[in-house]
Amino acid sequence: MTGESIPSVDERIARVRFDAHGLVPAVAQQWDTREVLMLAWMNADALRETLTSGRAVYWSRSRRELWRKGDTSGHVQIVKDVRLDCDGDVLLVSVDQIGPACHTETRTCFDTDLDRADVGDRGLHPVVG
Amino acid sequence: MTGESIPSVDERIARVRFDAHGLVPAVAQQWDTREVLMLAWMNADALRETLTSGRAVYWSRSRRELWRKGDTSGHVQIVKDVRLDCDGDVLLVSVDQIGPACHTETRTCFDTDLDRADVGDRGLHPVVG
Repeated sequence: MTGESIPSVDERIARVRFDAHGLVPAVAQQWDTREVLMLAWMNADALRETLTSGRAVYWSRSRRELWRKGDTSGHVQIVKDVRLDCDGDVLLVSVDQIGPACHTETRTCFDTDLDRADVGDRGLHPVVG
Repeated sequence: MTGESIPSVDERIARVRFDAHGLVPAVAQQWDTREVLMLAWMNADALRETLTSGRAVYWSRSRRELWRKGDTSGHVQIVKDVRLDCDGDVLLVSVDQIGPACHTETRTCFDTDLDRADVGDRGLHPVVG
């Protein structure tokens, strides 16, 4: 490893291949337990704020605005690391999730809660050999 | 938990909210280490085969064909579980990854290999508080 300086935020954002809508999928993972918490989308502004503010910020496709996760719920994500995949079109965001990640109050957006009809069974029951 | 029967494959696929292109993002995670390996896309046919064959099958957006991961490389993904997120528009596929997940031969598509210029640094260097 050389002593090269870290690229500027603009240079880092320029490495990302955003889609035709200017978005990139971002997978949020709990840094210590490695649970996959959720997948959301970032545009360049959301990524810039994520890289510089220390909190995960997404683009809400339904509300069409920046979504500073936790502003309403308090369930913020403290950013530990952000990585780009081999093709430059997916982000992996390592976070410390305060409280539940999901708006349904489950820990992750993929958790099943069979006691709650509104959350229900999120398993798709593959055939496992 | 009740003794309800498992829904049919068609019923399970019908729960997924595919996008305007008929695709859904699928996050592949190593079942035991919980590494996030990659993100790829599935259409209904790919999901059907994933749920029934025991191997992860994606839709290649560049080649526009089903991509039975590992057919060329041998680096197959044995499916352990498939889960749907709270909004029904993201899949989390728990797999046993044989060999490297990434076509660059790194274990995951998010791994950095600073010794190889063609793989390089996949970190985006967020400010960490």
